[in-house]
Amino acid sequence: MIIIMKHGATTAQIANVTARVEQTGCQAHLSEGSEHTIIGVVGNGRPIDREQIESMSGVDRTVPILRPFKLASREFHPDNTVVPINGIKVGGEQVIVMAGPCSVESREQVMETAKGVKAAGATMLRGGAFKPRTSPYSFQGLGEEGLRILADARKATHLPVVTEVMAPEQVAIVSTFADVLQIGARNMQNYALLHAVGESQRPVLLKRGMMSTIEELLMAAEYILSHGNNKVMLCERGIRTFEKYTRFTLDLSAVPVLKELSHLPVIIDPSHAAGKWELVTSLARAAIAAGADGLIVEVHPHPEEALSDGAQQLKIHKFAALMDSLRPVAAAVGRTL
Amino acid sequence: MIIIMKHGATTAQIANVTARVEQTGCQAHLSEGSEHTIIGVVGNGRPIDREQIESMSGVDRTVPILRPFKLASREFHPDNTVVPINGIKVGGEQVIVMAGPCSVESREQVMETAKGVKAAGATMLRGGAFKPRTSPYSFQGLGEEGLRILADARKATHLPVVTEVMAPEQVAIVSTFADVLQIGARNMQNYALLHAVGESQRPVLLKRGMMSTIEELLMAAEYILSHGNNKVMLCERGIRTFEKYTRFTLDLSAVPVLKELSHLPVIIDPSHAAGKWELVTSLARAAIAAGADGLIVEVHPHPEEALSDGAQQLKIHKFAALMDSLRPVAAAVGRTL
Amino acid sequence: MIIIMKHGATTAQIANVTARVEQTGCQAHLSEGSEHTIIGVVGNGRPIDREQIESMSGVDRTVPILRPFKLASREFHPDNTVVPINGIKVGGEQVIVMAGPCSVESREQVMETAKGVKAAGATMLRGGAFKPRTSPYSFQGLGEEGLRILADARKATHLPVVTEVMAPEQVAIVSTFADVLQIGARNMQNYALLHAVGESQRPVLLKRGMMSTIEELLMAAEYILSHGNNKVMLCERGIRTFEKYTRFTLDLSAVPVLKELSHLPVIIDPSHAAGKWELVTSLARAAIAAGADGLIVEVHPHPEEALSDGAQQLKIHKFAALMDSLRPVAAAVGRTL
Amino acid sequence: MIIIMKHGATTAQIANVTARVEQTGCQAHLSEGSEHTIIGVVGNGRPIDREQIESMSGVDRTVPILRPFKLASREFHPDNTVVPINGIKVGGEQVIVMAGPCSVESREQVMETAKGVKAAGATMLRGGAFKPRTSPYSFQGLGEEGLRILADARKATHLPVVTEVMAPEQVAIVSTFADVLQIGARNMQNYALLHAVGESQRPVLLKRGMMSTIEELLMAAEYILSHGNNKVMLCERGIRTFEKYTRFTLDLSAVPVLKELSHLPVIIDPSHAAGKWELVTSLARAAIAAGADGLIVEVHPHPEEALSDGAQQLKIHKFAALMDSLRPVAAAVGRTL
Repeated sequence: MIIIMKHGATTAQIANVTARVEQTGCQAHLSEGSEHTIIGVVGNGRPIDREQIESMSGVDRTVPILRPFKLASREFHPDNTVVPINGIKVGGEQVIVMAGPCSVESREQVMETAKGVKAAGATMLRGGAFKPRTSPYSFQGLGEEGLRILADARKATHLPVVTEVMAPEQVAIVSTFADVLQIGARNMQNYALLHAVGESQRPVLLKRGMMSTIEELLMAAEYILSHGNNKVMLCERGIRTFEKYTRFTLDLSAVPVLKELSHLPVIIDPSHAAGKWELVTSLARAAIAAGADGLIVEVHPHPEEALSDGAQQLKIHKFAALMDSLRPVAAAVGRTL
Repeated sequence: MIIIMKHGATTAQIANVTARVEQTGCQAHLSEGSEHTIIGVVGNGRPIDREQIESMSGVDRTVPILRPFKLASREFHPDNTVVPINGIKVGGEQVIVMAGPCSVESREQVMETAKGVKAAGATMLRGGAFKPRTSPYSFQGLGEEGLRILADARKATHLPVVTEVMAPEQVAIVSTFADVLQIGARNMQNYALLHAVGESQRPVLLKRGMMSTIEELLMAAEYILSHGNNKVMLCERGIRTFEKYTRFTLDLSAVPVLKELSHLPVIIDPSHAAGKWELVTSLARAAIAAGADGLIVEVHPHPEEALSDGAQQLKIHKFAALMDSLRPVAAAVGRTL
Repeated sequence: MIIIMKHGATTAQIANVTARVEQTGCQAHLSEGSEHTIIGVVGNGRPIDREQIESMSGVDRTVPILRPFKLASREFHPDNTVVPINGIKVGGEQVIVMAGPCSVESREQVMETAKGVKAAGATMLRGGAFKPRTSPYSFQGLGEEGLRILADARKATHLPVVTEVMAPEQVAIVSTFADVLQIGARNMQNYALLHAVGESQRPVLLKRGMMSTIEELLMAAEYILSHGNNKVMLCERGIRTFEKYTRFTLDLSAVPVLKELSHLPVIIDPSHAAGKWELVTSLARAAIAAGADGLIVEVHPHPEEALSDGAQQLKIHKFAALMDSLRPVAAAVGRTL
Repeated sequence: MIIIMKHGATTAQIANVTARVEQTGCQAHLSEGSEHTIIGVVGNGRPIDREQIESMSGVDRTVPILRPFKLASREFHPDNTVVPINGIKVGGEQVIVMAGPCSVESREQVMETAKGVKAAGATMLRGGAFKPRTSPYSFQGLGEEGLRILADARKATHLPVVTEVMAPEQVAIVSTFADVLQIGARNMQNYALLHAVGESQRPVLLKRGMMSTIEELLMAAEYILSHGNNKVMLCERGIRTFEKYTRFTLDLSAVPVLKELSHLPVIIDPSHAAGKWELVTSLARAAIAAGADGLIVEVHPHPEEALSDGAQQLKIHKFAALMDSLRPVAAAVGRTL
């Protein structure tokens, strides 16, 4: 940490800060600039809280040197992590595609979708049984019955199942039926839930909060990793900005940034970001060209009757066309699909 | 709902949409403009999902007419709601002030703070026992031991206690010790938690998510109200913007907007918004002048030793000076403090 | 336009609004919903200002039906516009690449860069002679001398020149030396400048403001088009968000959205968006895969000595490698480079 | 400046950076942490560009120590600047109020408004003669005729006139008729214009861009101050965020922050921020309580016929009521109105 004192900080203020630093077992290196005194903190003892120092008189601000995440960082884990899921490898040469409806609505809907996306080349089946909805009056999902339907669709198609878990007490039941536990964007900083999926040792698809920085996403991953569960896939799904035409703004810069900062696989969700199925093809191609390890795409046999997110779900034949158009893009960046 | 068809939508597309509307028991009123056909939906049957309609061919977009919240709306509940808490009335003439440390760290710290803020005129005691922290390596709070300390401080000062609850399974234990259940900004859309505090029938302080719209805050309140618990206080605590000098941007426009749209009391948290104690006084004065029903302010006897958020906590004597400076502002807008 | 009256609006208020609408020569269609009265405005007379109506008693809000831009819209101009520049066609099958230094610093620097990017396959030369700088103490560009250097580099390489114009009075001199007039992001709503480049009839590269919506970008284009100058290329270069790791957030959704709403070519600037050269390759590939018609990329022979934006400029050999990696991506989406 | 090298930076990379620093006449102080090497730069020579250093191999990032503005900073100019305008002092004990219509539409409209706001206690008259409009089809202002009307209203009421200047070539004519030159939010980084008003030596009302940081606002002020014109008033008028209910989000934290960082007076524009006249009273009170030196408020005799921004303009009698309600708030924070 570096401490920048205010212009005109007194000798007593500087001495107080220095004493506070040394009290924790760290060393304080003073450097007098022409206008500001700088105090470098070299750590040996327990880390000092930046906020404590910033509350002291005469301190202008502090600058951290170390990144706040360690297990998630490439600095300390240079090789890519590959997450194995029933024989599929996420984070390797193959770009994986998770596809399926926003919500599980009926056995027929899920079976039709699962067979359709399998035929089109999807690698996994997605679908929501527990649904986080903005309105208490909206369809809240089929719950356990939905999980059973997903498990049956897996049996029929051999596609591993990805589904959301919304509360710590759901982790056990969801783990019984699903292969990957999804943490939704609104729960990215639900720490009780992060601990629970960390302990479960199951593969996790961790979605970036619509309001969360890349650093905060990696801190949320750190919570899961700190339980020894390193099967974490990071998912960018659009952040909130002032632009109103799209539902969210897909931050594709997050792909190269996450690849630089971390060793974990990166998945892109173009459906939630755009909020309009017409935009999904363009964004899915861009995601693969940017270097993403996978996509998660919403597909529904009849979007005009969907109980949630109808506007952003692709029909099955449009999904098949999307897959066809993605293969040359994957090849162009040295990947398979 | 109003449906705006695309320029050049075909007769067949218009007929399909009309049929879909009538199928749900609603009426469709066609209006041919020079460039767009507009379909007005007059509801009698079950509401139609806008997203379903938007997924249909030829539809440009839809426009909702009704606001999506009802129990929280002033339209359907014109009078102000006053929330009673151990004899204190939140939402009445008196501006209430909740004060105390970010985290409960020790019995001494809480007792000293509670007595100090009581003497300065605070109306309630705040303090965190369960702490949501960005890093898994940060202090996570004292848990139940922290709750006991808060309850003891209440006994000593008769100040009601506000404290955060982070997971549904904590609602029972927190309700045993505290008077008001706080939902933190990161949990504003943790629906399992909203249901649990709704069922508890306890007063709730609901913080706006840092990237949540005012409408989403009212939808979150609707979740709690839909359980028959109408003791909800709304709290603006800063939203995320591009500005980096303050930790968040305090959205004081939310005060008159929430007062117009809703009947629920509005509390402002200047400490978390600013992230710097030097800014708290200015923002606290502004909040009261804007018409807020209360403040929640962080106070710590020794911020430079605080285990969380040191930079934004006021020392006790500075809090006393703040209270003195707020009284004339409250009087200027016809309130007491 | 649709006018939504407040819940409980009085008969007199509704009559006032209706009268105001009819006074302008438009027709007012009343529709009584269960909770709100809706007034549809069918235009024949001069358009009514939405803000005027919104200031009237009893009005809740208004909803526009027509998009506010016309000349820039695909609705009224279904075919793609192709902008011809010295034999190059922007907006056709070929993806064009504009490359060169942020600032023109010296004849040697520009010549070396121009020859290098030409050899690597660039289609145009970019470089700033007039520089908008956040600080009055930063290098402000070589001005007219810089324009002469660019024109000489064009002579040597036959690459057309793109350069920024910052004020109406610079349009004439810049037009003497350059092929494309660039409007920078900070000037997207500098209306005096938009009028001047509109009148010039020169090709224009119009950059989206970092704070501007897609609709506002198209409105700015409308200013230029309204002077009969339809040689406008739209450029997305990153918008401002809360994310701090990248300088701006590149909004690649803007590519399919602009292609849907407008007929004008779309160029992407990955260099300014990212602010870091390491991210440029990933974003450039994504831009082409998303359907962009071109790229504008910063290249400098010695970025560590650049007088502006050193961190985001590619060295010449890295630009050549970038071009090689882009060709298969262009081919994968049916384009050439 | 402090340079933070990457984890694992080589000795050669560190030597290169050190050499680059010393080449400019500065000194490089090396400090080896456990995981990163830090290089402190102590300046004697000409300042080094941070971006150049960041483009070098092995550099992770750089941290500036000095703020980039000097003339605008309180560090180097501790006393408040008071801007005198025809006997009125902006930045002193009195809170000043600039009031008037968005656009000058007619002599009658301006005269009626000027007399009304004068009677209610306003200190200056505002009104737009040159109007920046998002659409080329909207009313663009009366131009010079509008300036003459404003000057006549000044003659009749002795209220100094504030009006916008949109291009460098308008500075002379606007200076002939007006007392204060306003730079609009969309032109905050129109550097040609900033230079021109700097040279004019006239009082300037500089509006913060809707997507500009506080630091960038102060850098724009620095452009004006660097011409020896220190009569600059800073104006916060709302920034762009994801919240859609208000037109912009008024950032009242900017008041104490600007007061801390700078010596220049701070004015608040609640009308443009809110976009709805119903919210103006609450925000105007809050602004004064926060410590603002003045307000700029839109007032129109008949907002439902206004040629621009009708929804946010107060009727004259409502403005008078606003002024009455502001006086006790000003008194509560030790100011007069």
